[in-house]
Amino acid sequence: MGLASTFAGAAWQRCTRWGSDLQLPIQPPAILDCSSLARRMRRVTASAIMELIKTTAGGRYISFASGLPDPALFPIEALAEITQDTLAKDGRAALQYGPAEGYPPLRAWVADTLRARGLSDATPDHVLITHGSQQALDLAARAFLDPEDTVLLETPSYLAALQIFDSFEARYTGVPLDNDGMDVARAEELVRTRRPKLIYTLPDFQNPTGITQSLARRQRLAELAAEHRVPLLEDDAYYDLRYEGAPLPPVTALARNPLAVYTGTFSKSIAPGLRVGYLYAQPELVKRLAHLKQITDLQAGSLNQRVVFRFCDRDLLAPQIQRLRCAYAARRDALLEALAGSLKSKAHWTRPAGGMFVWMTLPEHVDAAALLPEATRRGIVYVPGTSFHPGGEHRNTLRLNFVSEGEEAICAGAAILCETLNDAVA
Amino acid sequence: MGLASTFAGAAWQRCTRWGSDLQLPIQPPAILDCSSLARRMRRVTASAIMELIKTTAGGRYISFASGLPDPALFPIEALAEITQDTLAKDGRAALQYGPAEGYPPLRAWVADTLRARGLSDATPDHVLITHGSQQALDLAARAFLDPEDTVLLETPSYLAALQIFDSFEARYTGVPLDNDGMDVARAEELVRTRRPKLIYTLPDFQNPTGITQSLARRQRLAELAAEHRVPLLEDDAYYDLRYEGAPLPPVTALARNPLAVYTGTFSKSIAPGLRVGYLYAQPELVKRLAHLKQITDLQAGSLNQRVVFRFCDRDLLAPQIQRLRCAYAARRDALLEALAGSLKSKAHWTRPAGGMFVWMTLPEHVDAAALLPEATRRGIVYVPGTSFHPGGEHRNTLRLNFVSEGEEAICAGAAILCETLNDAVA
Repeated sequence: MGLASTFAGAAWQRCTRWGSDLQLPIQPPAILDCSSLARRMRRVTASAIMELIKTTAGGRYISFASGLPDPALFPIEALAEITQDTLAKDGRAALQYGPAEGYPPLRAWVADTLRARGLSDATPDHVLITHGSQQALDLAARAFLDPEDTVLLETPSYLAALQIFDSFEARYTGVPLDNDGMDVARAEELVRTRRPKLIYTLPDFQNPTGITQSLARRQRLAELAAEHRVPLLEDDAYYDLRYEGAPLPPVTALARNPLAVYTGTFSKSIAPGLRVGYLYAQPELVKRLAHLKQITDLQAGSLNQRVVFRFCDRDLLAPQIQRLRCAYAARRDALLEALAGSLKSKAHWTRPAGGMFVWMTLPEHVDAAALLPEATRRGIVYVPGTSFHPGGEHRNTLRLNFVSEGEEAICAGAAILCETLNDAVA
Repeated sequence: MGLASTFAGAAWQRCTRWGSDLQLPIQPPAILDCSSLARRMRRVTASAIMELIKTTAGGRYISFASGLPDPALFPIEALAEITQDTLAKDGRAALQYGPAEGYPPLRAWVADTLRARGLSDATPDHVLITHGSQQALDLAARAFLDPEDTVLLETPSYLAALQIFDSFEARYTGVPLDNDGMDVARAEELVRTRRPKLIYTLPDFQNPTGITQSLARRQRLAELAAEHRVPLLEDDAYYDLRYEGAPLPPVTALARNPLAVYTGTFSKSIAPGLRVGYLYAQPELVKRLAHLKQITDLQAGSLNQRVVFRFCDRDLLAPQIQRLRCAYAARRDALLEALAGSLKSKAHWTRPAGGMFVWMTLPEHVDAAALLPEATRRGIVYVPGTSFHPGGEHRNTLRLNFVSEGEEAICAGAAILCETLNDAVA
């Protein structure tokens, strides 16, 4: 997956990379006097994935492109019943302003859950409720990053986290992944030479690769960050979506690091439209992050926090997660089988133990972005892998979401994908 | 209300000003290595008001301190019914991710409303839905402000906006208010000499003073910003809460300014716990702000946006606003009458045509913060006015919220306030 590289500034070009291929609408000449915008805005642009999804939304594609969970699996009836009950019994508080830190019973519930994950000191004071884990990442970046600070991260990495770091004018130092996750020996070298201000990692079923970091790597990474006093930002959005194997402890749990921030969400397990996520950090840091949260939007929604809490408190979360695991595991298997059976070109791909994504690497000379128009002509959409690299390299890679569509569509779409790739590479 | 002044950096001291008076819990020595935090965090601290509210939450006070609407007036039953209907008919979309810009029908509804307010070009493309208008302010500041940029604003001004600007390391140049709003002649002088990067104004029933800007002043301010190409950030959170007189057009409507951002909210009219607000700007700027919004937390809650839209679409908003106006106007009158009848010391105060606040100025030598412990001992809480000044001056001022309590409590509380002040000033 390429050598680690150091780059800065070029990241904002990512978003326009596919413009000509897909005939995205050309932006009209800016009437906006950009010199009036803050310097950070030079690197705040459209998300390539969002533009791709918008552009293809009208057509009838089998989509491997989105990051969306399957809405057919949302627990709509339970949420409706709980919302009704919450408004009837606690309506005034559920519609009023509340504390920036979050609804206290939900903070306590999350703390209990995180203790079970291995964050053994977790108390409600360790938890801040956010508008999805996206906001938790944004708050942490805002708290830690000055312009030109270096972020050490896996390459490829989560696009919307790159966009956050871009917006704080970060530089990057990238560490390649193998099947055990981030190459921690390389990370150690880079921590010494590049002195990053933040380490960002997705240990479970990484977006976009689906790779899970091994326990040994987690341990080394935790110690590395703690020893060098580097803030650690651990994004564990997919923790609940594990389809095989035993859960592993968070990196944050494996060494005492007062600057570690661990983020999680109910978007993957309950529903993203409620916008309820959280972060864990030491209480002193949670306080500082809560001040930022208050500035940003005062607090997470009072009603939605109560609904999520009651859903969890009624023990509905574990069976809901079980339901998702069964459905999504079958879809992952369908995709992997179809790829193994039909892909004749020399590609290789990951076999994720959870999450939502398979990552495919094509022969070096094949350009996944250049193939996308032909793929869409044949009826499928995927995301070219360049988007997930801060420097926009690795054009021979692509990301496949396997949870948005049912098994039948996945099999049909995989057949089209294999044909397209077989034809292109032949 | 004091001369315009220019200051920077001292703003972060605001939050600890009352610590000793009220015996707020002393923060434990930071275990956090603050050198690891971004430079901006030096000015991100607790909100004095929030700390005051937390500290006094346990006691039985008549509170003039909060910024909370009266939850007894929330339209709970209508919201419960609409939520139920939304989840039944549109549950999958209401719980799924949605566009960063907001739920299209709600954007369209807001555009219609804003055209009626005088923003005559408003289309859905002019509207971005946010997590309350607090987030709209934060996004605008993030888009416009580099460190050391100067913000021109009314003094006093909205505390949580000052905190936003602090977090982007702004400097301030303050313009005093009189009964017609910002002293625009002074503002013009400061625009020429201080070259602000942003003008921030609250034209309707300003927080904290309750003052409304006259049409003539609005016109001059709009032209001033447009002529000098200064971004304008107009915070109109209280627009709906007008108790007398005809509504005035937004400043943003009065001159063509491609860098103007107008913000509004459903927090005051429907319920703050839903966290639904919005901003208006020219479409090119809305696009840029939507990129920031997506980075920040992807989007506003899908379900809450639909609930707010349906509430408005069923024509429930106008009667709800009417209900609030009747109730709050009576409370304002109760407070003003009680003050006029009982306050013997040489104080003067504003007579707001709407909103939630009365602003009181005591004789120069009287310190409202120093009086607060005695006031709380007697059973009331208010907010000392220093919090609303970037430099923390004007210790002889205080803010009184008149919507959180019923008329009876207001009368009783006002009597205590008058006694306290009469005793202190005597």
